[in-house]
Amino acid sequence: MKHFTDRLVAAIKEKGTPICVGLDPQLSHIPSFIRKEAEARKAKSFEAAAEAIIEFNKGIIDAVHDLVPVVKPQFAFYVQYGFSGVWAFEETCKYAQEKGLLVIADAKSNDIGSTAEAYANAFIGETDLFGEKVAPIDCDAITVNPYLGYDGIKPFVETCRKRGKGIFVLVKTSNPSSGDLQDREVKAEGMKNYELMANFVESWGADELGESGYSSVGAVTGATYPKELVQLRKLMPKAYLLVPGFGAQGGTAADVKAAFNKDGLGAVINSSRGIIFAWEKAGDEKEYGAAARAAVLKMKKELAA
Amino acid sequence: MKHFTDRLVAAIKEKGTPICVGLDPQLSHIPSFIRKEAEARKAKSFEAAAEAIIEFNKGIIDAVHDLVPVVKPQFAFYVQYGFSGVWAFEETCKYAQEKGLLVIADAKSNDIGSTAEAYANAFIGETDLFGEKVAPIDCDAITVNPYLGYDGIKPFVETCRKRGKGIFVLVKTSNPSSGDLQDREVKAEGMKNYELMANFVESWGADELGESGYSSVGAVTGATYPKELVQLRKLMPKAYLLVPGFGAQGGTAADVKAAFNKDGLGAVINSSRGIIFAWEKAGDEKEYGAAARAAVLKMKKELAA
Repeated sequence: MKHFTDRLVAAIKEKGTPICVGLDPQLSHIPSFIRKEAEARKAKSFEAAAEAIIEFNKGIIDAVHDLVPVVKPQFAFYVQYGFSGVWAFEETCKYAQEKGLLVIADAKSNDIGSTAEAYANAFIGETDLFGEKVAPIDCDAITVNPYLGYDGIKPFVETCRKRGKGIFVLVKTSNPSSGDLQDREVKAEGMKNYELMANFVESWGADELGESGYSSVGAVTGATYPKELVQLRKLMPKAYLLVPGFGAQGGTAADVKAAFNKDGLGAVINSSRGIIFAWEKAGDEKEYGAAARAAVLKMKKELAA
Repeated sequence: MKHFTDRLVAAIKEKGTPICVGLDPQLSHIPSFIRKEAEARKAKSFEAAAEAIIEFNKGIIDAVHDLVPVVKPQFAFYVQYGFSGVWAFEETCKYAQEKGLLVIADAKSNDIGSTAEAYANAFIGETDLFGEKVAPIDCDAITVNPYLGYDGIKPFVETCRKRGKGIFVLVKTSNPSSGDLQDREVKAEGMKNYELMANFVESWGADELGESGYSSVGAVTGATYPKELVQLRKLMPKAYLLVPGFGAQGGTAADVKAAFNKDGLGAVINSSRGIIFAWEKAGDEKEYGAAARAAVLKMKKELAA
């Protein structure tokens, strides 16, 4: 398969926007008619929850797939419904890809050696199945946590190289307490931990460039820290930035401007609740797809301005 | 439910050893008679892989459950078989608990706010299921990654308080490149990142003590760094330490001695491949349970000496 960033850049150019829709389903925010039908079919079971999530996600995907290049299902919101929830995760990824979307698995995976390899197999790779290699989920990219150092990154990078996939390494996250560790200044280097991680990301990806000029090793950099974003863009010129925190978390179009390079590329801006649960403000639950579509169009206009 | 560390300490005293058996199944290391039967029933499918894993794990659990207090299934090795693998994870946890074992989910989860809460729900908590609260997996404890700071820890701590569960925060991991981030010296504090994290762990757990005197907020501290272990034990007197890296990764009984407090408690020593795949050295695949049992008894003797 082609290099991940070549596929990503082509999709962004085709759709004319770098919006990523976060698919973070919470049962209580799914329209009641979907929930009731699922409960009627399968009672109060995890399978019923999974069916409701799949139906909801398909409705969202149907409504926005022609507008955006990429979606990002958050693994936590699926695994909280047990293995049925993970089934819903798989079905969601598959459906999104059938509709021409790229899929970033937001699993924030991290472990070492053969265990990190197992996570890479799960989300972007292939697993040995009685002597045959089979892709269990086959997303296009995955988010990873760098606390364990390069041992925890290497198996993912190797899978990316083999299969045209990408990773986004957590560098500076969007949450209030992200500074507990990330903002501490490291003595010898005279820089903060997140800057150190940014340098790692750039070096881990140095040999992993696509024709786009971007590396398969990207970074997660929160929209809620616009000053840091300016600096991180400079530290990682070759990294694609995945920018969460837009909308519900407070990040604005002005805040995320710094995430882009002069070529207008280099960043994907994620919004989750602001899009998928837009129907709660619009009022008509039957029209949750239309509400999501309107929210995407509004965000597209804001980003373009 | 009683405080996690009270349950853990009681189990350790009852079994007379702090050994944790890591349940990290890799299909290719499972005895061929189990694999062949599963393949004959369900062809080369993820479901067949899951069935083989469950059978293998049950055999291991049957062979060691009267000897050890706790097991630690590693989520990566299950999710690499898709949702069927996660089903095998759930069945393994359930069976281990039926046999009186405590279960630590090694998922190294990390995220923020409501997303971290969803991970807590998944592994140690309860999920809202059409207005009812249901525990999807219900392990006794989970490993978590602290890169995102306290936002990513708090939802887990709250679940621990409500449901008598525990967490083990990654502090100093056992892998060679753990120093990439963890060993950097922080300027203002004059200590390394892992020491800073150790101080966080102690403070995050200060109000979470059981009758045992230990906190529900524990730490992961690798056996492969014995010098650091001495120091980490001192920095976190109230934290239970989960010590991986024994055996296959090179940690010895002498190395892990420093993980214990003077009361002889305060640490759980994990071995995975050295126990569950002991049959590969012993030679008789049909006797994989007996080989695992012998490996546990050998480790128990080494630790007692």
